Amino acid sequence: MIKRLCVIGVGLIGGSLARALKDARAAREVVGVGRDQAHLEQARALGVIDACETDVAAGVQGAEMIVVAVPVGAMEHVFRALAGKVPDGAVVTDVGSVKGAVVEAADAAFGGVPPWFVPGHPIAGTEQSGVQASRADLFHRQRVILTALPDTGTDALERVRRMWQQAGAEVLNLDVAHHDEVLAATSHLPHVLAYALVDMLARRADHEEIFRFAAGGFRDFTRIASSDPQMWHDICLANRKHLAALLRGFQQDLGTLARAIEKGDGEALIKVFRRAKQARDRHCADDNRRPANAAQQTPEPPAGKKA
Amino acid sequence: MIKRLCVIGVGLIGGSLARALKDARAAREVVGVGRDQAHLEQARALGVIDACETDVAAGVQGAEMIVVAVPVGAMEHVFRALAGKVPDGAVVTDVGSVKGAVVEAADAAFGGVPPWFVPGHPIAGTEQSGVQASRADLFHRQRVILTALPDTGTDALERVRRMWQQAGAEVLNLDVAHHDEVLAATSHLPHVLAYALVDMLARRADHEEIFRFAAGGFRDFTRIASSDPQMWHDICLANRKHLAALLRGFQQDLGTLARAIEKGDGEALIKVFRRAKQARDRHCADDNRRPANAAQQTPEPPAGKKA
Repeated sequence: MIKRLCVIGVGLIGGSLARALKDARAAREVVGVGRDQAHLEQARALGVIDACETDVAAGVQGAEMIVVAVPVGAMEHVFRALAGKVPDGAVVTDVGSVKGAVVEAADAAFGGVPPWFVPGHPIAGTEQSGVQASRADLFHRQRVILTALPDTGTDALERVRRMWQQAGAEVLNLDVAHHDEVLAATSHLPHVLAYALVDMLARRADHEEIFRFAAGGFRDFTRIASSDPQMWHDICLANRKHLAALLRGFQQDLGTLARAIEKGDGEALIKVFRRAKQARDRHCADDNRRPANAAQQTPEPPAGKKA
Repeated sequence: MIKRLCVIGVGLIGGSLARALKDARAAREVVGVGRDQAHLEQARALGVIDACETDVAAGVQGAEMIVVAVPVGAMEHVFRALAGKVPDGAVVTDVGSVKGAVVEAADAAFGGVPPWFVPGHPIAGTEQSGVQASRADLFHRQRVILTALPDTGTDALERVRRMWQQAGAEVLNLDVAHHDEVLAATSHLPHVLAYALVDMLARRADHEEIFRFAAGGFRDFTRIASSDPQMWHDICLANRKHLAALLRGFQQDLGTLARAIEKGDGEALIKVFRRAKQARDRHCADDNRRPANAAQQTPEPPAGKKA
């Protein structure tokens, strides 16, 4: 049981974690910290947090666990506000989608990455954002990656791991660079592609008509293009090295496909399509086992298996 | 009421249309035609069709309405088998995703496009295929585009329009070239992108790990990469001119984004992301009004409004 949890940035992720831990009775009191008082009051009215502060130093007082859930580009600013204010024995973790940049920010702000800081990333979310979209089951059966450093404290790591398990998640470990490379491929690149496609179509003179004839496949494909632009701007810049390399590779692959289509080379096309279908069917066959809304379909409580 | 409906190609689309029309009591008898007797027997056992034939000429005997629901690449072959066998007064329509190529195939097979042939395209489907995936509500609240030619008979057009309305669809008209351009943008290009992305990741040495960390966003984004490769091979080749032009344009846009990411040009990135989010939120805001599974959520029968 976390006696006092401090969530800095009460949006979709921070708010959902607060809800999940309260529902699982794994956090007694939740203090929300943010810049906007009205927004914090809304979170309190929704029952997501119990108390709120606009000042980081005041918000973390007496907290056992501090979760920084702000956009990647705002991490360093928050870490600087935290420097020297983290209570003795408290653990700090974050939820940023790029770990290299967050670790660098922690290093700069704290003068070295402290043993009580555990970099983390819940692989969950929706295209929505804001505390009004938060839900207690967002992390249920989803994965959380922790990217501990050699100096990360064993106890700190264990406490963060337990927290996410109590929120219903499965916790895995990766090293920082590997995390950023894998996520560039499975998340950051798809977001850029979805944004780029919708933007290309939106710039056409006949875009009204174009979108009118878009079916369910298009809506699924472009759902992630409804994600928060500022957040994805931060992520793309923070993970630019891995992302740019993948984008260049993808551009090349598209060139190969375009040439095959232009030449009428059906063999080349069907080879790619078959390989892709096979891979997706095999790897995403667990769609039913781990749907994004898993918790809505299962009566089992989030923390049931591990609490 | 169609006394005798002949469906050539009893897969997801042909099977779903047969189910929908039977459910709406808009077709009395359905004859399925296909190459594979065992497959046809399965369709009969499922109640999708009442009778079956492996011979096109035998199957269309006495039919009032003939729906050709085979992959685009097989259309001409079926049209040639139909030539001279279409009963007097019968109407023929198809469900191909590319209309230019289908019209050319009809022109070649029939020696000119006959007034009783109505090119059509239901903008519906799932990544699944085959009669076992067919459902009576597949077209409910979805759009069907008819691309009539100057010589298409008014009566034939009206009968096909009524059939799709009775299956629960909204019917719209477009000209052939415009249809192919619009669909290249909203359907064919996204399919190529999804296949290309999954294939690129599947070819990596660390693909097992890559897919393990894929979340709901990735699964939605790549769902269409589980579609039938042969069908999409046919579509891409049949619509190659429009598709290749779009692919080249998209490749250029990706180059611009890759440069912005490499240079750390956040302004350029966020401009694209914002424009895309705005367009998608505006145009796909009717997600709830027209979900792919609309019929499962509404008690209203498919033909309720228009029958």
